[in-house]
Amino acid sequence: MLKIALSGCSGRMGRVIADIVASRNTMQIVAGFDVNTAKYADFPVFSDPFECTLDCDVIIDFSNASSTEHLLAYCEKHHLPVVICTTGHTGEQLDRIRSAAAKIPVFRSGNMSIGINLMTALLREAASILGDQYDVEIIEKHHNQKLDAPSGTALMLADAVAGALPYNATYVYDRHQRREKRPAHEIGISAIRGGTIVGEHTVLFCGRDEIIEIKHTALSREVFAVGAVDAAAFMVGCQKPGIYDMNDVIAARNIEFP
Amino acid sequence: MLKIALSGCSGRMGRVIADIVASRNTMQIVAGFDVNTAKYADFPVFSDPFECTLDCDVIIDFSNASSTEHLLAYCEKHHLPVVICTTGHTGEQLDRIRSAAAKIPVFRSGNMSIGINLMTALLREAASILGDQYDVEIIEKHHNQKLDAPSGTALMLADAVAGALPYNATYVYDRHQRREKRPAHEIGISAIRGGTIVGEHTVLFCGRDEIIEIKHTALSREVFAVGAVDAAAFMVGCQKPGIYDMNDVIAARNIEFP
Amino acid sequence: MLKIALSGCSGRMGRVIADIVASRNTMQIVAGFDVNTAKYADFPVFSDPFECTLDCDVIIDFSNASSTEHLLAYCEKHHLPVVICTTGHTGEQLDRIRSAAAKIPVFRSGNMSIGINLMTALLREAASILGDQYDVEIIEKHHNQKLDAPSGTALMLADAVAGALPYNATYVYDRHQRREKRPAHEIGISAIRGGTIVGEHTVLFCGRDEIIEIKHTALSREVFAVGAVDAAAFMVGCQKPGIYDMNDVIAARNIEFP
Amino acid sequence: MLKIALSGCSGRMGRVIADIVASRNTMQIVAGFDVNTAKYADFPVFSDPFECTLDCDVIIDFSNASSTEHLLAYCEKHHLPVVICTTGHTGEQLDRIRSAAAKIPVFRSGNMSIGINLMTALLREAASILGDQYDVEIIEKHHNQKLDAPSGTALMLADAVAGALPYNATYVYDRHQRREKRPAHEIGISAIRGGTIVGEHTVLFCGRDEIIEIKHTALSREVFAVGAVDAAAFMVGCQKPGIYDMNDVIAARNIEFP
Repeated sequence: MLKIALSGCSGRMGRVIADIVASRNTMQIVAGFDVNTAKYADFPVFSDPFECTLDCDVIIDFSNASSTEHLLAYCEKHHLPVVICTTGHTGEQLDRIRSAAAKIPVFRSGNMSIGINLMTALLREAASILGDQYDVEIIEKHHNQKLDAPSGTALMLADAVAGALPYNATYVYDRHQRREKRPAHEIGISAIRGGTIVGEHTVLFCGRDEIIEIKHTALSREVFAVGAVDAAAFMVGCQKPGIYDMNDVIAARNIEFP
Repeated sequence: MLKIALSGCSGRMGRVIADIVASRNTMQIVAGFDVNTAKYADFPVFSDPFECTLDCDVIIDFSNASSTEHLLAYCEKHHLPVVICTTGHTGEQLDRIRSAAAKIPVFRSGNMSIGINLMTALLREAASILGDQYDVEIIEKHHNQKLDAPSGTALMLADAVAGALPYNATYVYDRHQRREKRPAHEIGISAIRGGTIVGEHTVLFCGRDEIIEIKHTALSREVFAVGAVDAAAFMVGCQKPGIYDMNDVIAARNIEFP
Repeated sequence: MLKIALSGCSGRMGRVIADIVASRNTMQIVAGFDVNTAKYADFPVFSDPFECTLDCDVIIDFSNASSTEHLLAYCEKHHLPVVICTTGHTGEQLDRIRSAAAKIPVFRSGNMSIGINLMTALLREAASILGDQYDVEIIEKHHNQKLDAPSGTALMLADAVAGALPYNATYVYDRHQRREKRPAHEIGISAIRGGTIVGEHTVLFCGRDEIIEIKHTALSREVFAVGAVDAAAFMVGCQKPGIYDMNDVIAARNIEFP
Repeated sequence: MLKIALSGCSGRMGRVIADIVASRNTMQIVAGFDVNTAKYADFPVFSDPFECTLDCDVIIDFSNASSTEHLLAYCEKHHLPVVICTTGHTGEQLDRIRSAAAKIPVFRSGNMSIGINLMTALLREAASILGDQYDVEIIEKHHNQKLDAPSGTALMLADAVAGALPYNATYVYDRHQRREKRPAHEIGISAIRGGTIVGEHTVLFCGRDEIIEIKHTALSREVFAVGAVDAAAFMVGCQKPGIYDMNDVIAARNIEFP
């Protein structure tokens, strides 16, 4: 039974993590760390990690960037792998993460969704096989409060495709001002905004009389919590210090293409 | 049994018409008109309509714009309703169509697909009911040889929605150059181009935690032939001279919203 | 400014209602009723409606079936329209609702989503126009914890389509055991179950070379709260006692097809 | 410049092949074989391959099963690789194909679409990575004249997924007769039938708050001609006798996962 300590256990994402772990019979949360020590679940909650003397295998951190340094000291002391899910670190805090990674295994990933990371791998494969006979188009949909367009994830997916294509692709965001056939070496990227759509990314490979489509739909932001739990399970097996990310999780699972 | 004469019977669309009529047991083609009098089907083919003395109920015209005037003379002589599916008429030819419509029932429609015309009606209804609580986004997909973007049909659908909304909508084709929340009174229109996609139009109404979506997919350009046959069946019942279009066909069928 | 009293204001759905009302500048919540009188928002909370002497225009009830009778007594006393969103009433409780409806306007709807109700209206229209030339197929998707298949909503949509078709449709749930062309007068209904999908319903009208598709996606169960707020806004204008449902809300908004 | 001889050049698929080859500037058709020697294109047509003395690099065969043996004799004589696209061979004819493959490279594939074959590879990868945390559902759509359900391709995709999953999956075609939560180790397969849909296959991996979807759409049966041309280009590089199929074409192109 995998033993997890959960930093930020009383926050919204912390509670989602607790819920996910409770639904799996191979792991359990043995301790929580949070300034808010109100108990929402059946594990003890400590306001400071160093107060905790319980044994655990891995730490998941969903607290906030300012707590990272203190938590890393605790992880180093006990030589524990840690999954950092907080974001918005300063340059100084990022340096501290890197120095910790010289001593312990540290997980940190641009996108915590296992689905988006898998999609990236599938897109690279599809692009390398379909080559220049298929037009690539990306459509992403998000809620109407989102400021940027296209999404960072859409650009990440476009880069994954572009890197595997046999030509230098140009990204095109709008076609309404020109009047011409579609040039062959473009990747079209369209951003749809409306209502409360959580996040949807579709990549189309359009060939002569066939379309191959890979799509990811996020149903809630809790999807990142699932990725964190998967990452924790993976990190327990990592002895070697260093920075790990979701691609390592996927590579470890990939039986067919090792 | 409805008796149809088919002008342009030897061309690609003419043959599709013949095939569709053959599949329905309420109608038959009794005569074809075409400069190419080779027989592809079991009805007689005349190089000039005036050579034909067979009785019929309605004419479908899929020949070409230059034949329209001669055909209209024939229709006027026999007082026959006519479904004009040719396009690209000159101003003079359009005047001739209008003068014919003073004497006989003439069908002519911007879009011959019954599906697109139905979609337009449904969009007007949805927009009037959903009002200003739902963001409207339109996505259209076409093959990579199409010159214009967005498609004329997408703009027609946008106009149908905009006309039924309680606000003045602005059409937006690109969001990648600005950094802001989605303004409420926009209609986003995105054009996807790739491969040999025949034509797909989707309109999304995105509200708080729900999306209503109306979509039309054309599987081949033959879909316009289906519309022409439906129009012919409708026109047989029209005694009154005048110009009719696909909205009249739909209105006649609509039991619920007369 | 529309004044709403909210019964069950401290529950999950009650809080969603408060959030939605706060986002609209034409309405406000003036009082809450709940056994849990902890304040989550800026309006006063009463454990019993009769303690409340504040003036309001309409009541939304998201408490539970056992509170309905007491609440109806309050509504009758003040002659207030009420939107009942609780479910699971006994026969006796349903009788009480009907007797209240003889004195005051009572809203109660099988499905509280405005989108699903609109979809039903659009389907009736589409089916009556497309008639017997288009095959109808329904696909619904829900989470893996759902017990019934197909969903009640899918059957409701099938009934709406079937009622407007010119033939007697047979519902078909499985085709893998027979080997034959699709009979013309079927409605196919497929139920997809997986993960945490909230609810998706798609109805396809498949004709010769074209498909018309109407789809509803629920992003969270909160969508029913939106419908309740819309119903409350509608009920304020209803003087006449009686039972109202979501079709009345839609009919009132429908400019085009009155 | 790749030189192709095309057997069955006057048939429908033969003409599509000629059209595809004409659109690529790296290959040309130098000779056609067909009992119908009417010329539709700019290459010479021979009623018997042995009459042709023109030099070529590879043969594509879209004639019919009864011509295969004669064509193989020609291929063996000139030591030419051959892409066999005809189907419906007798056991004896299949033996002849195998004996030819001992002397020359022979291409023969269950599904000639490069997209479907790529999809199979992507599904294996996705299934092996997502493992048992995601429910798998397959939806396929075809025209109303199709006799079997689900399609052979849908079953082929299901087998690809099942082979890469960490559990023994049960295929389920209908859920409407039981009332229970979805068992974890099922693959649901739904067949939609309507109108003239050419062929659409979607595989869903539904996890906690995310869905990964891989979809293939065929826009016409001509898509198999594209696969044949791609196979021909691949076979020219194959010196070794043997049976090759679309997986070899894909593997050869796959830069990333060799």
